[in-house]
Amino acid sequence: MKSIRHSIEEKSWLGWLFFGLTVAVVFLLGLLASSIVERRAEAVFAYTPQVDIREFEPRNEIWGMNFPRQYQSYLQTADTSFRSRYNGSAFIDMLEVDSRLVVLWAGYSFSKEYNQGRGHYYAVQDIHEILRTGGPAAPDEGPMPNTCWTCKSPDVPRVMSEVGVEEFYRGAWAMCGPEIVNIIGCADCHDPETMNLRITRPALLEAYNRMGKDIQQASHQEMRSLVCAQCHAEYYFKGEGNYLTFPWDNGFSAEEMEAYYDGYDFADWTHPLSRAPMLKAQHPDYEVYVTGIHAVRGVSCADCHMPYKSEGGVKFTDHHIQSPLNNVASSCQVCHREEREKLVDNVYQRQEQILGNRDQLERLLVRAHVEAAEAWKLGATETEMEDILTGIRHAQWRWDYAASTHGGSFHSPVELSRLIGTAIDIVQETRIRLARLLIRRGYDGEVPYPDISTKAKAQAFVGLDMKALNEEKQYFLENIVPGWLQEAAEREAAW
Amino acid sequence: MKSIRHSIEEKSWLGWLFFGLTVAVVFLLGLLASSIVERRAEAVFAYTPQVDIREFEPRNEIWGMNFPRQYQSYLQTADTSFRSRYNGSAFIDMLEVDSRLVVLWAGYSFSKEYNQGRGHYYAVQDIHEILRTGGPAAPDEGPMPNTCWTCKSPDVPRVMSEVGVEEFYRGAWAMCGPEIVNIIGCADCHDPETMNLRITRPALLEAYNRMGKDIQQASHQEMRSLVCAQCHAEYYFKGEGNYLTFPWDNGFSAEEMEAYYDGYDFADWTHPLSRAPMLKAQHPDYEVYVTGIHAVRGVSCADCHMPYKSEGGVKFTDHHIQSPLNNVASSCQVCHREEREKLVDNVYQRQEQILGNRDQLERLLVRAHVEAAEAWKLGATETEMEDILTGIRHAQWRWDYAASTHGGSFHSPVELSRLIGTAIDIVQETRIRLARLLIRRGYDGEVPYPDISTKAKAQAFVGLDMKALNEEKQYFLENIVPGWLQEAAEREAAW
Repeated sequence: MKSIRHSIEEKSWLGWLFFGLTVAVVFLLGLLASSIVERRAEAVFAYTPQVDIREFEPRNEIWGMNFPRQYQSYLQTADTSFRSRYNGSAFIDMLEVDSRLVVLWAGYSFSKEYNQGRGHYYAVQDIHEILRTGGPAAPDEGPMPNTCWTCKSPDVPRVMSEVGVEEFYRGAWAMCGPEIVNIIGCADCHDPETMNLRITRPALLEAYNRMGKDIQQASHQEMRSLVCAQCHAEYYFKGEGNYLTFPWDNGFSAEEMEAYYDGYDFADWTHPLSRAPMLKAQHPDYEVYVTGIHAVRGVSCADCHMPYKSEGGVKFTDHHIQSPLNNVASSCQVCHREEREKLVDNVYQRQEQILGNRDQLERLLVRAHVEAAEAWKLGATETEMEDILTGIRHAQWRWDYAASTHGGSFHSPVELSRLIGTAIDIVQETRIRLARLLIRRGYDGEVPYPDISTKAKAQAFVGLDMKALNEEKQYFLENIVPGWLQEAAEREAAW
Repeated sequence: MKSIRHSIEEKSWLGWLFFGLTVAVVFLLGLLASSIVERRAEAVFAYTPQVDIREFEPRNEIWGMNFPRQYQSYLQTADTSFRSRYNGSAFIDMLEVDSRLVVLWAGYSFSKEYNQGRGHYYAVQDIHEILRTGGPAAPDEGPMPNTCWTCKSPDVPRVMSEVGVEEFYRGAWAMCGPEIVNIIGCADCHDPETMNLRITRPALLEAYNRMGKDIQQASHQEMRSLVCAQCHAEYYFKGEGNYLTFPWDNGFSAEEMEAYYDGYDFADWTHPLSRAPMLKAQHPDYEVYVTGIHAVRGVSCADCHMPYKSEGGVKFTDHHIQSPLNNVASSCQVCHREEREKLVDNVYQRQEQILGNRDQLERLLVRAHVEAAEAWKLGATETEMEDILTGIRHAQWRWDYAASTHGGSFHSPVELSRLIGTAIDIVQETRIRLARLLIRRGYDGEVPYPDISTKAKAQAFVGLDMKALNEEKQYFLENIVPGWLQEAAEREAAW
């Protein structure tokens, strides 16, 4: 009996231990629950609306009162310090980096000035300052149509709602100078009522309609790319009304869009050297992205360029839209378990593999333009030049599609490389025709490659009066823009 | 007191429960341990040597006695049923699929017959049967050197050890007919003593030595690619002794190997149409692989082509060397969590993106050869033709590098696409020179593209007497090969 009692006492001791442990675990669980509840409260608190946001509210700072984290991260798009990798300057003057561009775009405004984009924050300032928009002194003056504003500001959907879309596209760029002042922001992609993503620019919706697709059926994940695609896409200004249109009716590929433009006999401009009817590609970022493996795997633009972030108890989308290479830990490394340096190297390796042939293609295009100019000089006929001009048009379009897209060497390296290969073939076949034509007209040998080794030399070669353009811009910035901003400030003060 | 006693009894009940649970868990742990020990025993049993394997043992079935799983899986390389995707036949006659090859390789034995490899199992049978080796009736006859055997059989290191490496390479291919009969297998990659991977062919070791690298320092994971690289690499037959040599001294890339060959003024043959000094690329699989993302991530050839497999309690390397597309679950899906169909589609998409430009490059090369032939016919001089012939040589080398490698569109699509782009540029620049030269010599316009729409037409165009070649081969297979096999069987019976 004693041993049994002893045994019971032992078991009893074990029981107490078990009981004590349970108490400790339950206490810790309580602490955890309390912590969770606290953090949720903080999250809920952050999202309690402080102000009512009206439809078409263009001022990001108003939205920022309700969504301070998104707004504050958005403001970081002002930071251009990552550029120190290149030259320490916020600007990268692409015509200085690659002066061949001046010749390829001769006769078109991009030959005046073309810089690498430096962040959404600067959209309005940059369109004021760039030489492409000239120096209009009155609302109906200047080289550019009002359509050029379309992607620059959340004031655009506001003005469109007031004057109508067609009316917006009509008229000169200076027309809306006093109206469009707020930088790209909240209202461009969000519904002020529900905060859902929404498309605010007509061109994408219209392209979807023409393709028989309903954008209302797009998933939230698809919208996380489509709101970007409103602007980061290929487009052209259709007809006299400069109606902004996506050439997507046949499909997204460079060849399909080329066929679309050929079908319309559309040309952005005529090249002054070769007299070819040229096409200018406008950063077909979405089109290139959809051909790449990340799109195939269902990764959206926002997944890499606006990855999730945590602050306090709140997980939110980082609105500091930027290159994932500046933010590898939150973008690439979410899926790819490799060292940052390795991942960045992999990107640059792809770029290098693409850039060699792209640069060579540019040299060949420069040659084709100057050889065609020589042929005209020697009395070539329209009939003799017809196929040659088509060849130059197609080769340069494919080059521009590959060159003007942002990050294309990473987004879809195989597709870009393929396209550059087809363009090299086309431009060289064209130069075979030119060689035969030139020799028939008495020119035997290589037409000398022009000295375009610097931006200044290239701009002189294509006959640009840079002094006049710069002076006109200076006058405009000092005398016209301040009036625009003043007028806008008064209007907004009255809201 | 009663309530305390009651409480003690309750706790005592809890103690018994705790005790019972512990007993159950310990029992289950025992079962698990027993299961592990049992499986280890089975594994150890399977690897107890049944026979001693002597150095240079070429008979795979002898090795198979000790390693039945590896051997039996190796025998599956005889299975060609996956080919039904193409035409249901075990053979894919590449000259039938793409008759341009006949013109590009005119004057070289590949224009006679070129089939897609169908598995290591067939290596010896295929080299007997292919028209390229002709129909030698005596040991010193036939078009091919003995070097051609080098990668076909584990009899090769055996014979090399007997006669010496240089002596092996010297002499005609028929010399070793009775010696080389065992198909590619165990002794090609394994040390019979330790079963470690080892390099048995001199060329790779010699190339490493010339590069100042020590292959003894290679890790096991590197060896899982390097044993493949002994044969799946670019090589040439150097000098009169046909010494098999890797052109790696400047590096692995197509441009670096091109510079190596140019430095030696080496040519595999002279093209009968263009008279260009040509280079034939020999499946530079390892060189292309090292430029791709899988190599960069440390994935070896064996990881995808010979993935691990479990049978019973034994995990072993599947020696059924095959396309990972036939074995997605054990290869791709170990890392990539995507549906099989999607992964396979991704591979084919890359192939399609590469093949368009590759095919166009072939058409341009055919044109360049016939245009050069026309130029010679019209009296072009050696001096006039010099740059043109170099252009054809370089463009076709780069094409062949991209075309002859196995699976290159998957292993390194960006690199192959880049290379094809450079080749298109070079061949077209060459055709510009040809256009000028032809017109100077009185030929204005396009030289007609030959009718090479079928293999038969293409072989007639380049002047091959296929009837004679086939009859010679038939005689050889019926009258010479049986004697070789008989002699070998007698030799092996005496071992």
